[in-house]
Amino acid sequence: MNVLVVYAHPEGNSFNAALKEKTVSILGGTGNKVAVSDLNEMDFKPALDTRDFLELENPASVNYLMEQRNASAKGLFAPDIKAEQEKVTKADLVVIHFPVWWFSAPAILKGWFDRVLAAGFAWDFGKIYKDGLLPGKKGMLVVTTGGNAQIYSKDGLHGTDMDQVLYHINHGVLYFCGMRVLPPFVAYSAFQVGDEGRRRYLEEYEARLKKIDSLEPIRYP
Amino acid sequence: MNVLVVYAHPEGNSFNAALKEKTVSILGGTGNKVAVSDLNEMDFKPALDTRDFLELENPASVNYLMEQRNASAKGLFAPDIKAEQEKVTKADLVVIHFPVWWFSAPAILKGWFDRVLAAGFAWDFGKIYKDGLLPGKKGMLVVTTGGNAQIYSKDGLHGTDMDQVLYHINHGVLYFCGMRVLPPFVAYSAFQVGDEGRRRYLEEYEARLKKIDSLEPIRYP
Repeated sequence: MNVLVVYAHPEGNSFNAALKEKTVSILGGTGNKVAVSDLNEMDFKPALDTRDFLELENPASVNYLMEQRNASAKGLFAPDIKAEQEKVTKADLVVIHFPVWWFSAPAILKGWFDRVLAAGFAWDFGKIYKDGLLPGKKGMLVVTTGGNAQIYSKDGLHGTDMDQVLYHINHGVLYFCGMRVLPPFVAYSAFQVGDEGRRRYLEEYEARLKKIDSLEPIRYP
Repeated sequence: MNVLVVYAHPEGNSFNAALKEKTVSILGGTGNKVAVSDLNEMDFKPALDTRDFLELENPASVNYLMEQRNASAKGLFAPDIKAEQEKVTKADLVVIHFPVWWFSAPAILKGWFDRVLAAGFAWDFGKIYKDGLLPGKKGMLVVTTGGNAQIYSKDGLHGTDMDQVLYHINHGVLYFCGMRVLPPFVAYSAFQVGDEGRRRYLEEYEARLKKIDSLEPIRYP
């Protein structure tokens, strides 16, 4: 199995980094090939613009979406995008590690979605969800939060639960591109649970990784 | 009234740009002061890192959130963040214009949330929602989509409606910081509705702007 780890935390001493190391060591330890995109380390460019293409189809009136489709057809993506797309193409499993900031992904990871999962590469007009361009792959989010599990509920402070918080990525990005989506691993209150709490999270996550082949994807209607 | 327009579309010929121009001309035409942050034009830095602070409290083991609190207390934000925070502080109304990409904001706008709406400035421990640090301000999202209104529904292709799609920004960012949230203006299928459809959207939006003082904020439980 080829595994792509996309990791978006700026701090190497974070618990997010420890979870990412688990993914690399456990999945890599059983004969899989593991590639890691450490977006902060790579200084990955988050904002999209015309520099994302070696050549423009319509420089006089740029439409980024149309330029993505053109670049997909003719191999005109900038090298940093092309390199990431090649990793995605090879991957059977994409594990995405990030801290939940503002109920979503860090900007640098959002930029990876915006630029790498391009029209014509990951999806296209009429080619979404079941007909998405990345079928046969699985995706899984591994996230840390500041807040505890109780406040992430319909009746809790945030007025929404983690399934809804992550829906715009699980359903809106991964499933949209045709991937099967494994249940996310969520480490709530990663900072406040203390060393013992974090040790337990790592154990739970290791157990999860060891049975990853048998995990049932989320069933969307 | 002081208005801050935060605008995140890379293409000056986009319909998003036309809506933004309406905000500037209509709200600016009635004696309000309007400031515009055109994030792409500014080449706004989306990814957060230690360069966001003039000085670090704990350089040996950086925790970004703690550095934000320290910078808020001591005035240590990098100039680009400080300039944006000053605009937010002055604003009575913040209008945020963006295209919905991957069911969320473009990376460059997500970076504005991550970096500008810092701990100690826009919120703090125990200072969220009703106790958020930006009370007395109103916020409003103005968005364009590729897809039509029908597919944004619980029973539609996306399996979710626009209120849910925008919840992580309306509730999770604006309301979280203590702002009152005006109903979003959504221009569905901005590309496909044609000139006539876009003209109608602009008319509707202009009418909305003209009664903005009397618009009722969203009531969250």
